[in-house]
Amino acid sequence: VQTILLILSKTKLKIAILGTGNVAYHLHLAIGNCEMLEFVQVYGRNKAMLKDFKAPSKVSSLKGLIPADVYILAINDDAIATVAKALTSLEGLVVHTSGAKSIIALESLENYGVFYPLQSFTKGVDVDFRNIPICIEANTKQHLKTLQHLAEALTPKVFHIDSKQREVLHLSAVFVNNFTNFMYIAAEELCASSDIPFETLLPLLEETALKTFKNSPQHNQTGPAKRGDTHTIQQHLELLKESQYLSLYRELTLQIKKKYNS
Amino acid sequence: VQTILLILSKTKLKIAILGTGNVAYHLHLAIGNCEMLEFVQVYGRNKAMLKDFKAPSKVSSLKGLIPADVYILAINDDAIATVAKALTSLEGLVVHTSGAKSIIALESLENYGVFYPLQSFTKGVDVDFRNIPICIEANTKQHLKTLQHLAEALTPKVFHIDSKQREVLHLSAVFVNNFTNFMYIAAEELCASSDIPFETLLPLLEETALKTFKNSPQHNQTGPAKRGDTHTIQQHLELLKESQYLSLYRELTLQIKKKYNS
Repeated sequence: VQTILLILSKTKLKIAILGTGNVAYHLHLAIGNCEMLEFVQVYGRNKAMLKDFKAPSKVSSLKGLIPADVYILAINDDAIATVAKALTSLEGLVVHTSGAKSIIALESLENYGVFYPLQSFTKGVDVDFRNIPICIEANTKQHLKTLQHLAEALTPKVFHIDSKQREVLHLSAVFVNNFTNFMYIAAEELCASSDIPFETLLPLLEETALKTFKNSPQHNQTGPAKRGDTHTIQQHLELLKESQYLSLYRELTLQIKKKYNS
Repeated sequence: VQTILLILSKTKLKIAILGTGNVAYHLHLAIGNCEMLEFVQVYGRNKAMLKDFKAPSKVSSLKGLIPADVYILAINDDAIATVAKALTSLEGLVVHTSGAKSIIALESLENYGVFYPLQSFTKGVDVDFRNIPICIEANTKQHLKTLQHLAEALTPKVFHIDSKQREVLHLSAVFVNNFTNFMYIAAEELCASSDIPFETLLPLLEETALKTFKNSPQHNQTGPAKRGDTHTIQQHLELLKESQYLSLYRELTLQIKKKYNS
């Protein structure tokens, strides 16, 4: 029994979080609630922001950091390399949480990696980490195992993604999140201009997203551009004559037609 | 009691469906299962397609149509006006189900309207009509009341949308469905080109859609274009150098920057 307890306590990773933004906030809740992990400390320069955090230790100076197995940098991309240089004396593994930054940003350290939760976090909106993919990368196989252990404590969706892949993943996320949301904005504005309630479109919007869980989006593509339905396209261009979305409609229709030779 | 029964039997509308495609199929199931409606007949030229329908009467000739309160034309846009001309002897209300066609397509008739369920239907995928908005329009107030009665038997989401509005709604649906799905295709292809499983993006994709139920998409817009983050945009353009999605990224980034003066 003693051996088992020893193993259990050994595998209970001590985690510290550096940062007080949305990612830091949601991560600290998930880690704090996870029985397989021990959340030991949060660091943030902004003391007012620290108030929202539940942590056994809160510090506003990097010198106040206590020993941990993993230090998670949930800070602005531009601050990562600078903060890393101030952490060279730490013995633990230091990881950043950025989708856009290479692992190289931490190369001034001995033990480093990336721990990238792929979701858009909003303050005040609860998230279930079990549905959030976490992409990991590390500078040694041993550190990758540690990150795997940490990530699997939070979610079954753990992926090994290197920095080159993560760049492409981040770009793809722009299409799936930012650009898609801009399609919604266009639709909402077009509706508003004709006194149509936007809620008429919400079930279609939801179904379009949910279909992607059943089939590849390649399989789900429909519409006038794919059909090469010139009559409807002309009608739409006419409706958009004065709209800021005219050139976007043109470009999207062109690209879909190109893809389907329609 | 007799009066009440009379009212109840009077309000049980008799419905016939003309057509055997996806919309016809899903509508006939919903109407057939609705106790407040009486599904009396389906018409389809294609006898093989009729086999999948559960109906007290199936006919392949317009001459075989029996009396009904409402005849729903769930047929190709291009066939609507032609079929309508063959229905001038009917006494019931004739409606089409097209998002793109004006009510004028039925003006050769005396009693006509539009009954447009705003969803993308797929054969073999069950739909819950209670979550589908139905947009109605009719050539008289009395007929509009009848359509309201019919639509409300199927869904609480009933909207009065005239033909001019429906044109804009149909265009908006292209943004929310076809164009959004093309964003998903771009992301899936970019991922595939770097051996990244597309499933890493599905939770973000879903969350992006679901956020629209809580806030206006205007409120939800984020990303490098909105922030005016030139460094990340340059990095993305570099990644897309050889991609068919380069010009689309450029155009979308341009439009988002224009909208947010970023």
